[in-house]
Amino acid sequence: MVAAAYPDGMTAVWLDEIRSLVGDRWSTAPSDLDAHGQDESWHPLHPPDLVVFPETTEEVAAVVSRCHTEGIPVVAFGVGTSLEGGIAALRGGVSIDTSRLNRVLRLSIADLDCTVQAGVTRHQLNELINPQGLMFPVDPGANATLGGMASTGASGTTTVRYGAMRHNVLGLTVVMADGRIVRTGGRARKSSAGYDLTRLMVGSEGTLGIITELTLRLWPIPEAMAAATCTFPSIDAAVEVAIETIQLALPVARMELLDEPAIEAVNAFDEMDLPVAPTLFFEFHGIRGAVDACADEIRRMVGDAGGTFTWATETEERSRLWHARHRAYWAMLAARPGGKGWPTDVCVPISHLAEAIRDAKEDLEASGLYAPLVGHVGDGNFHLCYILDPDDPDEFARAQAHYDRMITRALAVGGTCTGEHGIGWGKREFLREEHPEGIDIMKAIKQALDPRGILNPGKVV
Amino acid sequence: MVAAAYPDGMTAVWLDEIRSLVGDRWSTAPSDLDAHGQDESWHPLHPPDLVVFPETTEEVAAVVSRCHTEGIPVVAFGVGTSLEGGIAALRGGVSIDTSRLNRVLRLSIADLDCTVQAGVTRHQLNELINPQGLMFPVDPGANATLGGMASTGASGTTTVRYGAMRHNVLGLTVVMADGRIVRTGGRARKSSAGYDLTRLMVGSEGTLGIITELTLRLWPIPEAMAAATCTFPSIDAAVEVAIETIQLALPVARMELLDEPAIEAVNAFDEMDLPVAPTLFFEFHGIRGAVDACADEIRRMVGDAGGTFTWATETEERSRLWHARHRAYWAMLAARPGGKGWPTDVCVPISHLAEAIRDAKEDLEASGLYAPLVGHVGDGNFHLCYILDPDDPDEFARAQAHYDRMITRALAVGGTCTGEHGIGWGKREFLREEHPEGIDIMKAIKQALDPRGILNPGKVV
Repeated sequence: MVAAAYPDGMTAVWLDEIRSLVGDRWSTAPSDLDAHGQDESWHPLHPPDLVVFPETTEEVAAVVSRCHTEGIPVVAFGVGTSLEGGIAALRGGVSIDTSRLNRVLRLSIADLDCTVQAGVTRHQLNELINPQGLMFPVDPGANATLGGMASTGASGTTTVRYGAMRHNVLGLTVVMADGRIVRTGGRARKSSAGYDLTRLMVGSEGTLGIITELTLRLWPIPEAMAAATCTFPSIDAAVEVAIETIQLALPVARMELLDEPAIEAVNAFDEMDLPVAPTLFFEFHGIRGAVDACADEIRRMVGDAGGTFTWATETEERSRLWHARHRAYWAMLAARPGGKGWPTDVCVPISHLAEAIRDAKEDLEASGLYAPLVGHVGDGNFHLCYILDPDDPDEFARAQAHYDRMITRALAVGGTCTGEHGIGWGKREFLREEHPEGIDIMKAIKQALDPRGILNPGKVV
Repeated sequence: MVAAAYPDGMTAVWLDEIRSLVGDRWSTAPSDLDAHGQDESWHPLHPPDLVVFPETTEEVAAVVSRCHTEGIPVVAFGVGTSLEGGIAALRGGVSIDTSRLNRVLRLSIADLDCTVQAGVTRHQLNELINPQGLMFPVDPGANATLGGMASTGASGTTTVRYGAMRHNVLGLTVVMADGRIVRTGGRARKSSAGYDLTRLMVGSEGTLGIITELTLRLWPIPEAMAAATCTFPSIDAAVEVAIETIQLALPVARMELLDEPAIEAVNAFDEMDLPVAPTLFFEFHGIRGAVDACADEIRRMVGDAGGTFTWATETEERSRLWHARHRAYWAMLAARPGGKGWPTDVCVPISHLAEAIRDAKEDLEASGLYAPLVGHVGDGNFHLCYILDPDDPDEFARAQAHYDRMITRALAVGGTCTGEHGIGWGKREFLREEHPEGIDIMKAIKQALDPRGILNPGKVV
């Protein structure tokens, strides 16, 4: 096996020592290193020097402890679906692959909770618990690991109803920078016992600790589920219905916006024949009567807005619809073969959503960029996804400039530069713009918990 | 005016300087000092040396900055309804009374959010927004300030439906220990922009910063609201219905348990004639059909459990019921004139709730203590409220020993020593027991953000 170039302070001796902590579960094969140095976005490759595959919290702690002593960077890796370069090993070091931390440790149907290792994916968990009548609803699209979703502060299509990761994580096991193992939170539904370390770790992107286990809130599968696709004469009309839905507090479980380019991409990629128009995908969950009442109200609003409302009540039809929505990112990439994806992620107060989308799309046209739009519009969160020619730096520059303007407008109305993708290393300057005073507090916390700066260096702060 | 004894490092000169920062809005009158040194619980009096009444974030910052330079303790004060001694000035210093930070700064009906100063009480906010069709649902019983509720990590009767403070605070303005003003979070419904400083501050009890402004999520007043009282042949039967309600995910808005002594106290205090039996108070919110469907299901369950279900659909009747429930603490105090109240606050996974309550009540009888029970049972949270003779140290000792056992049992099943009252200085040893590793992380954060230890010293960590 060929050893890669070591970062400062990482010698072959220490590499051997770290490897020895995980038996034969490690790799320095270039293909493995590369696979752990690039996520699904445009961010360039930054491979680690070593990948380890621990199976227990204690193994992670042993590796981190050793890296701490030697000042070697440690980056946690789930399945690599991050979108802001979160898993890039900017300074080399050790990638902790969580794919073998893949056990569901405890499931309590009576308490609607479970404890899983960080490498369990959301599909894996749902396949286990769905037959028991339970579900874990947070759905970022990709079949990410639950540890990765917590680290990123992920949310997604169902957050309008079930909240984001931070609302559904009850407790964590975290390996701190010096290898200490800390358990945060617990199994109680609520607690005021000291500082909320759970929520501090959720969204910290592996820079304050490595999440190895999660205690998660589960939800009963609702008695009734139904979906509808609604097309509109204009994107403004679609957004207005979304806003009204939130303002009336109608209990939709999902409400996803796709613009015409997104619908075209999905139709082509998944052999669908959705009408090419601004579209809202709805899902309704609840007891039968409540689902019907909610859908009736939406149908009326869609009609008033000049749109059409089409039911998808059959499970298969519903699954096909959401399958297509989940694959929208890959559909967009396929629409421009060879292109690199760069999904934007602003989130604004809902009364500013129509304007934010209108401005972004007008500016997009002026900028001559291809970027279909999907949006978790119930949360005020939308993604224009630039598909860029990797060999055209001018196109990248125009996308960067467009994104800058979009974020500046979002911040001006109290919005955020990232609703759910995190900061990674792609958005650090925007974090400073969004939290000019808070960034120093974040840095003080980082310094207190990781004074040697070994945890995912170069990210977030 | 008589100057009180100053803590180390606080001289009359600095006292004058601090006073000069707030015009004539300060007091050293012994009655004012005493009123700011004791909360509503049994904790003994610890008055500050000075009370100031700032009106802006900038005034708070000026006071804190000066205190930081001089090493003078600073304790934030809302209306003094804390229950774990959170506002006690254990080392004297300056009490920052937030009663003049009482302005609603911004209200957006379209976005269902608002920004308020920390001294705005929840009733004050609701009186303003209810006529607009909006409500702020978090309800700890007392008419606390929103700043105090956030600092404590409060929740209460509606948390089963609307979440706790941590779920309803979108952003904060915080004065840090050195007087810096930091804005956390924002107005977007969700964000993954850096560390979650908002949730770190919520529940930190004024030990990491002084909250001066809050951006809050608001909710539409539901189309229909209805309440019911249900009495049961045994407390076990009542708890079993509560557990089943949660496990079926029935969307109740409130579900409060009262045992016979609590009902007796409420009846006597509020001239009610509720049947003396273990009782669940329910409230249902939603569209009319959903409220009816949910209530029908509960009625069936209550019948199966041998209980009786009585509607309280009229607004007046419903208000009277909840008014009585909110005054339960004072009703209990009145049941034993001259007594001191000591409300317990454990929270357990719901499958352990019946056992936790049964064990606690059996132990209570064996201990010869008077302590009616109320519980936010949908969250697994309940309060036995010891009413103690302040002149009987043996009774206090028996209560302490009983509470120790109750918490030990709660922690053994993954529960917490405080669901919503916080740590204050009453529960610091239990915090260590609950988070033996986490406490060191909390201390590191405290050290990083308040190295001189001036913010609410002696509390939480």
